[in-house]
Amino acid sequence: MPYRAPVDEYRFLFEHVVGLDEVTATDRYAEASDDLVGAILGEAGKMCEEVLSPLQRPGDLHPAVLENGVVRTSPGYAEGYQAIADGGWVAIAADPEYGGMGLPMTVTTAVNEMMAAACLSLQLNPLMTQGQIEALEHHASDELKALYLPKLISGEWSGTMNLTEPQAGSDVGALRTKAESNGDGTYSITGQKIYISWGDNDFTGNVCHLVLARLPDGAPGTKGISLFMVPKLLLNDDGEPGVANSLKVVSLEHKMGLHGSPTAVMQYDGATGWLVGPEHGGMKAMFTMMNNARLGVGGQGIGVAEGAYQHALAYAQDRTQGRTPVDGGTGTIIDHADVRRMLATMKAEIFAARAIALACAKAIDMGNATGDAGWVAQAALLTPIAKAFGTETGLRVSEMGVQVHGGMGFVEETGAAQYYRDVRVTAIYEGTNGIQAMDLVGRKMMDGGEAAFRLLDEMEGFAESAREALPDLADKVWQSCETLRETTEALAAEENLNARFGGAVPFLHGFARVLGGYYHLRAARAGGAGSAAEKLARLYIQRLLPQHVGLLTEARVGAEDLYALEPADLMPA
Amino acid sequence: MPYRAPVDEYRFLFEHVVGLDEVTATDRYAEASDDLVGAILGEAGKMCEEVLSPLQRPGDLHPAVLENGVVRTSPGYAEGYQAIADGGWVAIAADPEYGGMGLPMTVTTAVNEMMAAACLSLQLNPLMTQGQIEALEHHASDELKALYLPKLISGEWSGTMNLTEPQAGSDVGALRTKAESNGDGTYSITGQKIYISWGDNDFTGNVCHLVLARLPDGAPGTKGISLFMVPKLLLNDDGEPGVANSLKVVSLEHKMGLHGSPTAVMQYDGATGWLVGPEHGGMKAMFTMMNNARLGVGGQGIGVAEGAYQHALAYAQDRTQGRTPVDGGTGTIIDHADVRRMLATMKAEIFAARAIALACAKAIDMGNATGDAGWVAQAALLTPIAKAFGTETGLRVSEMGVQVHGGMGFVEETGAAQYYRDVRVTAIYEGTNGIQAMDLVGRKMMDGGEAAFRLLDEMEGFAESAREALPDLADKVWQSCETLRETTEALAAEENLNARFGGAVPFLHGFARVLGGYYHLRAARAGGAGSAAEKLARLYIQRLLPQHVGLLTEARVGAEDLYALEPADLMPA
Repeated sequence: MPYRAPVDEYRFLFEHVVGLDEVTATDRYAEASDDLVGAILGEAGKMCEEVLSPLQRPGDLHPAVLENGVVRTSPGYAEGYQAIADGGWVAIAADPEYGGMGLPMTVTTAVNEMMAAACLSLQLNPLMTQGQIEALEHHASDELKALYLPKLISGEWSGTMNLTEPQAGSDVGALRTKAESNGDGTYSITGQKIYISWGDNDFTGNVCHLVLARLPDGAPGTKGISLFMVPKLLLNDDGEPGVANSLKVVSLEHKMGLHGSPTAVMQYDGATGWLVGPEHGGMKAMFTMMNNARLGVGGQGIGVAEGAYQHALAYAQDRTQGRTPVDGGTGTIIDHADVRRMLATMKAEIFAARAIALACAKAIDMGNATGDAGWVAQAALLTPIAKAFGTETGLRVSEMGVQVHGGMGFVEETGAAQYYRDVRVTAIYEGTNGIQAMDLVGRKMMDGGEAAFRLLDEMEGFAESAREALPDLADKVWQSCETLRETTEALAAEENLNARFGGAVPFLHGFARVLGGYYHLRAARAGGAGSAAEKLARLYIQRLLPQHVGLLTEARVGAEDLYALEPADLMPA
Repeated sequence: MPYRAPVDEYRFLFEHVVGLDEVTATDRYAEASDDLVGAILGEAGKMCEEVLSPLQRPGDLHPAVLENGVVRTSPGYAEGYQAIADGGWVAIAADPEYGGMGLPMTVTTAVNEMMAAACLSLQLNPLMTQGQIEALEHHASDELKALYLPKLISGEWSGTMNLTEPQAGSDVGALRTKAESNGDGTYSITGQKIYISWGDNDFTGNVCHLVLARLPDGAPGTKGISLFMVPKLLLNDDGEPGVANSLKVVSLEHKMGLHGSPTAVMQYDGATGWLVGPEHGGMKAMFTMMNNARLGVGGQGIGVAEGAYQHALAYAQDRTQGRTPVDGGTGTIIDHADVRRMLATMKAEIFAARAIALACAKAIDMGNATGDAGWVAQAALLTPIAKAFGTETGLRVSEMGVQVHGGMGFVEETGAAQYYRDVRVTAIYEGTNGIQAMDLVGRKMMDGGEAAFRLLDEMEGFAESAREALPDLADKVWQSCETLRETTEALAAEENLNARFGGAVPFLHGFARVLGGYYHLRAARAGGAGSAAEKLARLYIQRLLPQHVGLLTEARVGAEDLYALEPADLMPA
């Protein structure tokens, strides 16, 4: 079924759940009026429905291929990309000085999610470019900015991130790609990079690679890494692409899904690059790019979940099977309690994950607009949660989407399977969900849990204010916050970092569960008695929120039991 | 990595967890000595390691295809099948009168699981034949038995199940395939069946279809359905295959996984069939076949989980990444707490699911050997749990298997993705897991929960006896049993069946969680202090058992909140 952009849901979330008004009250985002935001969502949604959604299946059936060293993209992708670029959707948050619209990340997050729902493989291209734009805005010289930003923001060129090497995945510091100064301000880059999403294409005028490499005097590990802009085509004096740089796509991966997105092995053979940020300062610049991309990947998970949900809902409203178990039913399988449980769960989970992602985006916006350390810390805290829970929601919801289809879900023709296959990578790339969880209990709790406690104060304060209108729901949310607070205190007090890591993933999911309860409660109170929002919140808080008990129990187990099991104990006997 | 048959683990489970000695103490299974069982597992395991495991990936890369109406199977499958048949592994539980070995289902379940771990697509073929054999043993005339059973048991011919039609999936009673008497003891079968696993092949001498169809005087719904044996090749007077019957494979499905198993659309055009069981008695015969197959499919999930686990374990022991966070570590990613958490969770989940499946098989054996109503009821109770939890374990463990591989998990070359894709269907076929859960809270609780309470008595009794040796673990298991008891009482007292259905899936999973804790506790006590079994039990009981709280809370929510959400409330806004 064709994708339908849930524009009114974003607007509801902006107004009642995450409070976009606080963002637009700042000088920086004052121009993002309700009308403008509404128009943006409407236009972007229309493009997703009409242009991108029809490209979803052709990309799966006809993957990008490497022919004579050139990447040929899937049928229709060039036109789809052009529509994204023409609409200005590559980078609506980018600096107006270079052609961007300077809109909040909150709005960008919604637009990105819609594009991901319609066609994940293609959407990954501008998402990578967005990360590159942000890295350049923060770290590049004015000269580089002037050369690259306008073309990237307009979508004329696209950008990639080159971090991973065969021996350096989660451990980026192990990379071996070398950079040497050419003595003229440029550098010579040599090495191999893998898993480069959209490493090449046949529809942009240039492909701009941001590459992590080590200078001869670079220390081992992450401290000795520098970041370089290495364009596919070197720029002429007029800034237009000229001769080819010394780099190539060696091969494309054969993947479980996301077939429309070429995942390249890239070879750099003394390619010419320009330093971005200071020498040996590459990791900091890369983190700028990755934090942006992490929230973006969380949004990919949510987008795919929405696509899978709509697909399953349409099937359930059409498929006749079995006697209608309720009076006045439609006669289709949506009337069966278990099917309705699945669909309602999918919708409730999407709401929770979306609210978390938008809350994270809002915190980024507030940090950018005000410089307030509290907002900056909240954005940092929420980023790993938004990434891991958003993508986990993509996995769970697309799995249920297949299940709602029954046997038809396992057959490729329905499209339910594609969502399931495509979204699987989102829990892996831009830092696996395990890495996100370690970030949450490690780096993000170096403040002793302060950012988490501040957020919990907000959550509990709201729950208390909602007790009169929604006593049972508010109480359940409040109680779950208390459990989360105690667990956070216990983890923050744990000095052995590895003991925190042993419970990091369940802690992250427990945190997301409770946050989801809070945002549903906000929606319920705003929606009012008997509203769809209130009914969905009740379902989430009754059925899904109780999972926090098991998750937060596991979060506190530590790591002793894990290391008590020797590798020999794990072998098949 | 090559599959390693976990033979000693089955023997440990037989001896200490499910108590196979009780089965072999019966007259019926007296010949299944420890030595014989050990030899069987060893031989079957060797064949799985050496012959079947190498066929896993070729089957994925080179799916079965339909060429000019003939199914051509994947490379090596014919030889693999021959090894299964030659070893006698098609039907070791079958009646010795017709060439079977008359072994317990408990042993069959282990052998089936190993074959599924090594090559799921091919294993599905004998699994289907096994169900057919059991249906014929119970319901066919002596003449049909004599004609078909020896060839099916030897593997010379294979068997299929033909239930589903485009409009009749979970609702089998809606089927339209027609049967008419030919007046000579045979029937003429006309109609279309879909999702017919191994509907044809190019390596058995005949393919025997058991087909559900309706006679002209058959009532609507399931009560008017009869079962027919419809062979691909009609038998000559000497019992050997002769001319072709009026049936054909119309097409094969294009599936997300299980590519080596041809899933056929079958067309019957006045094909000649022979009645199995009485007229209009088809559903009863089909249930014999399906109950067997349901446990078998649960075993498929567990087998794939074991394969995926071993694959991930080998990768984690080989892959170097990041600093070793513990003293004396191996320097590979297995030393990282979160990776070890995933691997240990996988192993603990497989143990729980396997113990449940073997306990179900033992109850079947005891019912068959003694006719005792208590054992029969326990088998009936455990069958949907074994199917749904076994396959859910396949989904969860293969998902973690991909995650352990990081980016390599999403790339097809490693094989991690294949487990993930292949196993997805097991949660759907032979009755979706939702149907299993409805069976559990519906049919299987028509005794008011008696069978469940008897099992809970056993579990709590054991937990009490283990309090001295393992106080903390025993107490946690006992407490979880109490919660399960209260939840079961509440569901059994709920007269509105649809309210039970609204919590059926979480109830089933909560039941499995608690059962898993019980079997882990048994293993811990048998293994003794400091044993791998005890360490794994501690991990399960500390980390995974607490999930029962959330699951059993949701189980009691009912269905009102589901129906409060109108279809309109579920639409994207």
